[in-house]
Amino acid sequence: MSKLKVMSAPSIRRLPSYLLVAREIQEEGQEYLSATYVANRLGFEPIQVRKDLAITGISGRPKKGYPVKELVATIEHFLRWDEEHRAIVVGAGNLGSALIGYSGFTTHGLRFVAAFDSNPAKAGQQIHGVPVLPMDELAGRVVDLKVSLALLTVPRDKAQDLTDRLVAAGITAIWNFTNCKVKAPDSVVVQNEDLSSGFAMLSVKRRLVEIG
Amino acid sequence: MSKLKVMSAPSIRRLPSYLLVAREIQEEGQEYLSATYVANRLGFEPIQVRKDLAITGISGRPKKGYPVKELVATIEHFLRWDEEHRAIVVGAGNLGSALIGYSGFTTHGLRFVAAFDSNPAKAGQQIHGVPVLPMDELAGRVVDLKVSLALLTVPRDKAQDLTDRLVAAGITAIWNFTNCKVKAPDSVVVQNEDLSSGFAMLSVKRRLVEIG
Repeated sequence: MSKLKVMSAPSIRRLPSYLLVAREIQEEGQEYLSATYVANRLGFEPIQVRKDLAITGISGRPKKGYPVKELVATIEHFLRWDEEHRAIVVGAGNLGSALIGYSGFTTHGLRFVAAFDSNPAKAGQQIHGVPVLPMDELAGRVVDLKVSLALLTVPRDKAQDLTDRLVAAGITAIWNFTNCKVKAPDSVVVQNEDLSSGFAMLSVKRRLVEIG
Repeated sequence: MSKLKVMSAPSIRRLPSYLLVAREIQEEGQEYLSATYVANRLGFEPIQVRKDLAITGISGRPKKGYPVKELVATIEHFLRWDEEHRAIVVGAGNLGSALIGYSGFTTHGLRFVAAFDSNPAKAGQQIHGVPVLPMDELAGRVVDLKVSLALLTVPRDKAQDLTDRLVAAGITAIWNFTNCKVKAPDSVVVQNEDLSSGFAMLSVKRRLVEIG
């Protein structure tokens, strides 16, 4: 999986922001949305917005812009956010709890059906309505919970072992929030979410601003 | 600030991973580290690793690779992770608590000196040793806490108001974990950390794998 090249990754990463703006405009009852408006709202160039949106297959109409309803539906369909994605959270600590409670995810079709934790005291509790199950039930529950996606929020030194167990249990997509680069078969999608990357960008931007 | 273009942003985002590998190799007592080794460990191409590392100014030695000690110091210095960055967390919910407890940050010079929360019941408590202060003390405390960086982990509808208050109080860098695109003066660095972007990438990768 690590070798899979995703073309236009930065464009894909920007789509959720466009979707957010489009949904707001849709709620306001407007029919069309221009690339210039989106660009001004988000601080991008209009040409960038047009290029990014083109990867979804939508095209704007001259002088009018994008039909808002179609734009929302097209981005959602491109990202498969118009389907339900049943997911488990492995590691029910602060980060796991924060992700389960993150309100943005519900509009992306993400549905948390269970969390797993190695602390027996947590088993039986609920986090935002999602039941916490004992970690040793992980392998046995993936099939009956009908999940293929797992969010990994365990300590770094447990990351690879749990990845192996998730893969063996039939999980085909892992969203990895540990800063350990886990290994998985090519048939399993691993998305690494390294918070250090954001801090690296922030640090470099600060230096650029200070230099002027 | 939104108009500031950071060249080679993807390269900068990968530097923390290289630093992690270099530190491990340094702990093992090895003197040199090759781009090929780093590439294999992280699933990149060696040419990519060399290009990325070149932005820090370091160059490898033929047949030997990069001197590990120098590599670690060079990346840390490039990212300013060899300095102390005093920071506050605004919003002491699950995500704020998770970020304060995230062990990776301590090695990046990030030092949390206080958290702020609008819930009076949280004031006076500690999160991983960091005191929680009442939100209405925010403006008055930024100077005496000697902080210029704030992590924003409040609900979306509070994001712009708190950004304005942080800027007025003298904060010059905001790491924004809400999915609201906040507006700030050009002199203030805003780094948006949108978890939806990662989920967009994951969704597209899954489709690519299923197509084959």
